Amino acid sequence: MGIRTAVAGASGYAGGELLRILDGHAEFEIGALTAGSNAGTELGAHQPHLRSLAGRVLAETTPDVLAGHDVVFLALPHGQSAELAERLGDDVLIVDCGADFRLTDPAAWEKFYGTPHSGAWPYGLPELPGARDALRATRRIAVPGCYPTAVTLALLPAFTAGIAEPDVVVVAASGTSGAGRSLKPHLIGSEVMGSMSPYGVGGAHRHTPEIAQNLGAVAGERVTVSFTPTLAPMSRGILATCTAKARPGLTAETLRDAYATAYAAEPFAELLPDGRWPATAMTLGANTALVQVALDEDAGRIVAVAAIDNLTKGTAGGAVQSANLALGLPEELGLTTIGVSP
Amino acid sequence: MGIRTAVAGASGYAGGELLRILDGHAEFEIGALTAGSNAGTELGAHQPHLRSLAGRVLAETTPDVLAGHDVVFLALPHGQSAELAERLGDDVLIVDCGADFRLTDPAAWEKFYGTPHSGAWPYGLPELPGARDALRATRRIAVPGCYPTAVTLALLPAFTAGIAEPDVVVVAASGTSGAGRSLKPHLIGSEVMGSMSPYGVGGAHRHTPEIAQNLGAVAGERVTVSFTPTLAPMSRGILATCTAKARPGLTAETLRDAYATAYAAEPFAELLPDGRWPATAMTLGANTALVQVALDEDAGRIVAVAAIDNLTKGTAGGAVQSANLALGLPEELGLTTIGVSP
Amino acid sequence: MGIRTAVAGASGYAGGELLRILDGHAEFEIGALTAGSNAGTELGAHQPHLRSLAGRVLAETTPDVLAGHDVVFLALPHGQSAELAERLGDDVLIVDCGADFRLTDPAAWEKFYGTPHSGAWPYGLPELPGARDALRATRRIAVPGCYPTAVTLALLPAFTAGIAEPDVVVVAASGTSGAGRSLKPHLIGSEVMGSMSPYGVGGAHRHTPEIAQNLGAVAGERVTVSFTPTLAPMSRGILATCTAKARPGLTAETLRDAYATAYAAEPFAELLPDGRWPATAMTLGANTALVQVALDEDAGRIVAVAAIDNLTKGTAGGAVQSANLALGLPEELGLTTIGVSP
Amino acid sequence: MGIRTAVAGASGYAGGELLRILDGHAEFEIGALTAGSNAGTELGAHQPHLRSLAGRVLAETTPDVLAGHDVVFLALPHGQSAELAERLGDDVLIVDCGADFRLTDPAAWEKFYGTPHSGAWPYGLPELPGARDALRATRRIAVPGCYPTAVTLALLPAFTAGIAEPDVVVVAASGTSGAGRSLKPHLIGSEVMGSMSPYGVGGAHRHTPEIAQNLGAVAGERVTVSFTPTLAPMSRGILATCTAKARPGLTAETLRDAYATAYAAEPFAELLPDGRWPATAMTLGANTALVQVALDEDAGRIVAVAAIDNLTKGTAGGAVQSANLALGLPEELGLTTIGVSP
Repeated sequence: MGIRTAVAGASGYAGGELLRILDGHAEFEIGALTAGSNAGTELGAHQPHLRSLAGRVLAETTPDVLAGHDVVFLALPHGQSAELAERLGDDVLIVDCGADFRLTDPAAWEKFYGTPHSGAWPYGLPELPGARDALRATRRIAVPGCYPTAVTLALLPAFTAGIAEPDVVVVAASGTSGAGRSLKPHLIGSEVMGSMSPYGVGGAHRHTPEIAQNLGAVAGERVTVSFTPTLAPMSRGILATCTAKARPGLTAETLRDAYATAYAAEPFAELLPDGRWPATAMTLGANTALVQVALDEDAGRIVAVAAIDNLTKGTAGGAVQSANLALGLPEELGLTTIGVSP
Repeated sequence: MGIRTAVAGASGYAGGELLRILDGHAEFEIGALTAGSNAGTELGAHQPHLRSLAGRVLAETTPDVLAGHDVVFLALPHGQSAELAERLGDDVLIVDCGADFRLTDPAAWEKFYGTPHSGAWPYGLPELPGARDALRATRRIAVPGCYPTAVTLALLPAFTAGIAEPDVVVVAASGTSGAGRSLKPHLIGSEVMGSMSPYGVGGAHRHTPEIAQNLGAVAGERVTVSFTPTLAPMSRGILATCTAKARPGLTAETLRDAYATAYAAEPFAELLPDGRWPATAMTLGANTALVQVALDEDAGRIVAVAAIDNLTKGTAGGAVQSANLALGLPEELGLTTIGVSP
Repeated sequence: MGIRTAVAGASGYAGGELLRILDGHAEFEIGALTAGSNAGTELGAHQPHLRSLAGRVLAETTPDVLAGHDVVFLALPHGQSAELAERLGDDVLIVDCGADFRLTDPAAWEKFYGTPHSGAWPYGLPELPGARDALRATRRIAVPGCYPTAVTLALLPAFTAGIAEPDVVVVAASGTSGAGRSLKPHLIGSEVMGSMSPYGVGGAHRHTPEIAQNLGAVAGERVTVSFTPTLAPMSRGILATCTAKARPGLTAETLRDAYATAYAAEPFAELLPDGRWPATAMTLGANTALVQVALDEDAGRIVAVAAIDNLTKGTAGGAVQSANLALGLPEELGLTTIGVSP
Repeated sequence: MGIRTAVAGASGYAGGELLRILDGHAEFEIGALTAGSNAGTELGAHQPHLRSLAGRVLAETTPDVLAGHDVVFLALPHGQSAELAERLGDDVLIVDCGADFRLTDPAAWEKFYGTPHSGAWPYGLPELPGARDALRATRRIAVPGCYPTAVTLALLPAFTAGIAEPDVVVVAASGTSGAGRSLKPHLIGSEVMGSMSPYGVGGAHRHTPEIAQNLGAVAGERVTVSFTPTLAPMSRGILATCTAKARPGLTAETLRDAYATAYAAEPFAELLPDGRWPATAMTLGANTALVQVALDEDAGRIVAVAAIDNLTKGTAGGAVQSANLALGLPEELGLTTIGVSP
């Protein structure tokens, strides 16, 4: 018998992707599925691609329903995780795909989210220094945001190697599923197809402090981050184009070596061969971050690009990767590096 | 040690999808990968989404290279399969994703393909009456065309139940991957995005006789098929909208019962719940054909719609499903009904 | 000073396309713009592409606001036109882009719309026999539905020439703008991109009786229409694949002649050169219907395909074309046959 | 009788867009249309959306064919303009959509294009200081590149006002038409749909020195430009996200004032109302650059975003705008600010 697993927020995009992965995972056994306003309806009404689970009825998201599972994945709006976690007890592994426990700095949290800080849980990005040890020892995981996953993995080797100045400019394009299943006028198909547009410009996006937190921790100093997200006419995928000022004297060879070394042993972060650049389609449904890097000598900047599937490595796949560690399972179990393409 | 498996034509879209599926299949061990003009290059140059296989070098498609495998999947242009098959011997399971051995009628072959007929192999659509027995007993499989897979599964229950007249009109939309990785002006992104267009109109498409062959075999009489394929602005997926004249007196209840009965036990053909209609995105990367049907009483026609992934159930997934049968493996091994969505 | 023109429903897609065309039209002067729930807001909040009109404030849709114009275009939900028309008086040219006055048969109206029939106005498809005379003499125009425009123009020459049997099967693909700016889950970008799906299957779509009415009037007998609309991953465009049973003995030459003759003098319906097939992208923003036809001798069916821009020839452009006639202006004024492509 | 106008390179995307605009322009009369390998074929085979010109036969691109016109638009591969221009004589207005005469610095030309420098012509971006006077007095115009148009218009007000440091980072997304009608594997529909990818990373793109030239001229000092172009899954449109280090003490109000002032009187560059951000779809087929700007105080950077249609304002529309000036016509003639949307 498998590890009893519940998914709260099963009718949303993150919840659907969790279920797609869990269904193919050898150790998890899918238990309670819950929803908010969709409680009482069949999963198939919301996730018609999950054929084998289509007839499952969604329960309400309550501690009683979620109790009795070994693992609970939370894919909920901000602010609901803290109370649920407390009620479920310390023995249950809780993997929160929401933002509530990502930021360590209460001031940053309050500035960007406008509510009291709930605290911070071990951060589910195993590629960060020390993260695997923390994840193996915890029953609480804060899954990173999708943009921070891509940006951090694009620039991590540069800051680890000490070859980048703390002056970062990022422009990232995301597929529309990053906005969730929201009924907003600018998200309907007629508006997004054939169009690119920015949002949260000028540092307003809530993922900005999370990116700064990750890079700053590695750099050992405050990293200035200019972050502009854009909406791209595709359902999935993030392409993060990240530049950092290069330390004086940096050579292309040293840069490449830093990246090759950093990711040589990583199962889900890969430096592509020289001359190949990532495309988001390469990662569709895969848990991989594909990275490439160049040195712009004229501009004096490192340009690193990462492509991920925002719902897989950027959310649900990353969540399962960290959960595998917390449960003592092989980190790669149930996850693939092979995308669905073309 | 697994079943040694070679893929000829590994740099194309069908070959790539075969490798994606084989990589996640518990029994197959991926051996030789071959190509035509791409021989000598790395797989990753053509299939950058297949990360774990990216460094594999493509060999030439010769009998010597393909020899020594238990299974050989052929994803080649028309006309190359017969000679290769002969040279590989009778013990090797050969699964041909090309058209060479699909048609039983030499005249139909010559009319549509313009070359001498090579013969016919057991047809790899397990859902057809008697097909599973034939597939379990063969070392040669002709994988159906993508459109015939969708259209046949849309109308099969109607003809099996004897409730449809042999007067069929089909309009099907396909993603552009159905045309392969062809460098043709009308297939470049700028032309296909935001556009729908027909092709092979008036019965000219080579899948027309294959559809007629399948439906005619079930109906026990010649079935007239008007088939119009269209190119849709998406990479994958076929939506086949199929109508057949209804036998007099047919009721919606009888129609639905026929479909429900036909697919009740099928692992990869599903009648959706009443009121739900298939969308191609539900099947992305999955081996499922999703079907729904309605009776248009005013027009006197059955309208059946099937959605498949043209590269999965329509090609590589269907090939593996049939290969599983021929090898005595569970039919569903390595295949999923869960799509990657949204 | 120009012809004073009001647009009711200016914040929707049909209203926006009307304004785009009217802005470039030499004779119309844009007056009142009205909306329902968007009244009081600026047009630019809803139609940010209409830069020169972006600061115009939307008024409420009332007879008082619309009074004092020479022409009033209505782009409103069903059921609002009759009362407005009565209040505006007989001298005002009213061009209704809604369905209220399209159907001549009260029973068909009530079956498909579920409300009492308001009557029928001259039908704004100038290409129909006798339509131009009727439009030149009227102050009331019922603009055809987008699908009926495409399907009628695809099959009109065949029925005019008496070479088609009254047995019609149509499958049409539409861009998502055909559904309007609706906040429905299946219309958000993440759901529609990369996906084709059918709707209104089995004769349920409200455009079915309108198609039958048009074709029946030309054929001089009841025409049976099986009509299946599908949603395509593009913003604009309709591709209508229309088949009709061919009269015995019909030849390809006779068929082509019928189409060439029918459209030789039409400004906005064109038979493409032999061998060329329409793509919706050719018609983006243009008022043209591009048509091609083939005879499927094996299936005994005429296959005619029409591509239009659903918002231009299919709605707003068609409306202006008919308004030009009613106002004694050149039919082509302010309209183009040149699409925006690629 | 109008201004006799020839288009060299009429079968490509830039040529097609030129013809779309010229066809609707009151003063130009379309004369010779030429092509390279497509000479001898009908325009309609390559530009099927240009219905009224579809039957025109393409001539070879020779001085003899182009002679006798008042204006010649060149939409040719690099390196063909200089000789043609010399042969056509000084009286003909030559508008070169290619790169040959854009760069003033021979060293920059040779570094990025690898051929000898041909010189520089008046640069067709009327919004630059002094540009209108130069354009009104010339018979030779170098039309800017598409990316430089977007980036320059995004940052021009900041450098004009002296509020930006010469430290610029740009990431721009372009539709695939920017790559022309190229038969390259990475440009086929199956590869580009659903995918974002970078190219020319690290300062390698040929538009980099052109951007630096434009911004440097305004800034009065060398401007460092890190430029990364990305390919987006859409046919048309550029979204340029441009950041520059802010001068110390810059306030949001001063920033906004600089932009409002700069573009108050510009017909084709518009600062959007506060809070509204540009989307490429707003500009489809329009000659407008839509701009918005924000100050990121934490990062100390100005973030300016511009959206254009790469083929209109970015190429053919910009070419006509400059040609209007050179011919003494109203600058806006034949051009629109209204996009085709949705």
